[in-house]
Amino acid sequence: MRNGVFISFEGGDGAGKSTQIALLANVLAERTGRDVVTTREPGGTALGRTLRSALLHGGEVSPRAEALIYAADRAHHVATLIRPALARGAIVLTDRYLDSSVAYQAGGRALPASEVEQLSSWATEGLLPDLTLLLDLPPEVAATRREGPADRMERAGADFHQRTRQAFLDRAAADPGRWVLIDAGQPLAVVAEHVRHAVVERLADSMAAGQEPSVSGRVGRP
Amino acid sequence: MRNGVFISFEGGDGAGKSTQIALLANVLAERTGRDVVTTREPGGTALGRTLRSALLHGGEVSPRAEALIYAADRAHHVATLIRPALARGAIVLTDRYLDSSVAYQAGGRALPASEVEQLSSWATEGLLPDLTLLLDLPPEVAATRREGPADRMERAGADFHQRTRQAFLDRAAADPGRWVLIDAGQPLAVVAEHVRHAVVERLADSMAAGQEPSVSGRVGRP
Repeated sequence: MRNGVFISFEGGDGAGKSTQIALLANVLAERTGRDVVTTREPGGTALGRTLRSALLHGGEVSPRAEALIYAADRAHHVATLIRPALARGAIVLTDRYLDSSVAYQAGGRALPASEVEQLSSWATEGLLPDLTLLLDLPPEVAATRREGPADRMERAGADFHQRTRQAFLDRAAADPGRWVLIDAGQPLAVVAEHVRHAVVERLADSMAAGQEPSVSGRVGRP
Repeated sequence: MRNGVFISFEGGDGAGKSTQIALLANVLAERTGRDVVTTREPGGTALGRTLRSALLHGGEVSPRAEALIYAADRAHHVATLIRPALARGAIVLTDRYLDSSVAYQAGGRALPASEVEQLSSWATEGLLPDLTLLLDLPPEVAATRREGPADRMERAGADFHQRTRQAFLDRAAADPGRWVLIDAGQPLAVVAEHVRHAVVERLADSMAAGQEPSVSGRVGRP
């Protein structure tokens, strides 16, 4: 029994995902009256925050260990936060989900994309978002938006971020039923309007207040 | 190029694995003159120690997340410590390896054994020990040997530990070429003699000082 709606935001750091999630959460809560849960990966749970700090500040992490830690964070996030929220009918907005693993691990590092995706699929028991919004921005533009010292991921270099961006774009192009591509280089309010439009267009039925939604988190491809 | 010898010790907490590893390490270092590396899972590396503390003291951990964290610890352990040591010809003795994951996760909890084993196989790129010593002890005897407050695993209950013990015994019986079963209820010195005997009998050629060993860590079954 899952009545909720599951939306993920993807894209590089600095693309404005967290800002757009906050704006969309307000709009959806007002318009639908439904419970809106905003969360993130990695680090959406207490366990996840321990794992996140191990990943970002714990020194060298071998590629397979890195992929497995992201999958562990996701498994716990889905089991203890996302699935329970969807089961009670909430709208769940997550800042990154499994596509980030595939793009960062497979696009950026040396692991086969299919294996990284299989890990996440096992971790989540196949839970895919109803809708994934890709906030796309050239890495060199995103870099100018960042504040504070760079973490391990951010220091990984221009090539890494370019390959990651391309991996996101390729995944979006390969599954247009789930993805919407949004140019995150536009002014914040314009991006927000595109986000709202995509959500209303794709998920209007599911979002209607006082109705049982017709769309719930997908398992596998339709 | 791997010239080392890889031996794992398995069994429940309180079976005396760490004591026997220390004794065997001294014997092997003296008799062979080779580099002997003793290590453990989880927590054989700095990253692993962060993961270990998340697992044992971080509150609830969903079953798939738990399996993935152990696999992450193992992936990093193999990539950064075990494989480099084997490559330079060392004898590696580890307190727990992938069989613990299968026994604890699959025997004790609700995940399919084949899936847990597949995770570890992916994590380690198929590295199996040359020899696995099972120090077998009834859980009720092991419990009387423990000191200090119980951690999350130790509090899991008698049924859990009984299923885990049986899972170890089943795995040992299914692959006698890799496993040696030792009754850990005997006096410490007698157990140590059985351990030495098993290692000499199975790995004499590999252990010979000044020789290139003929056995190295196995990938898959022979």
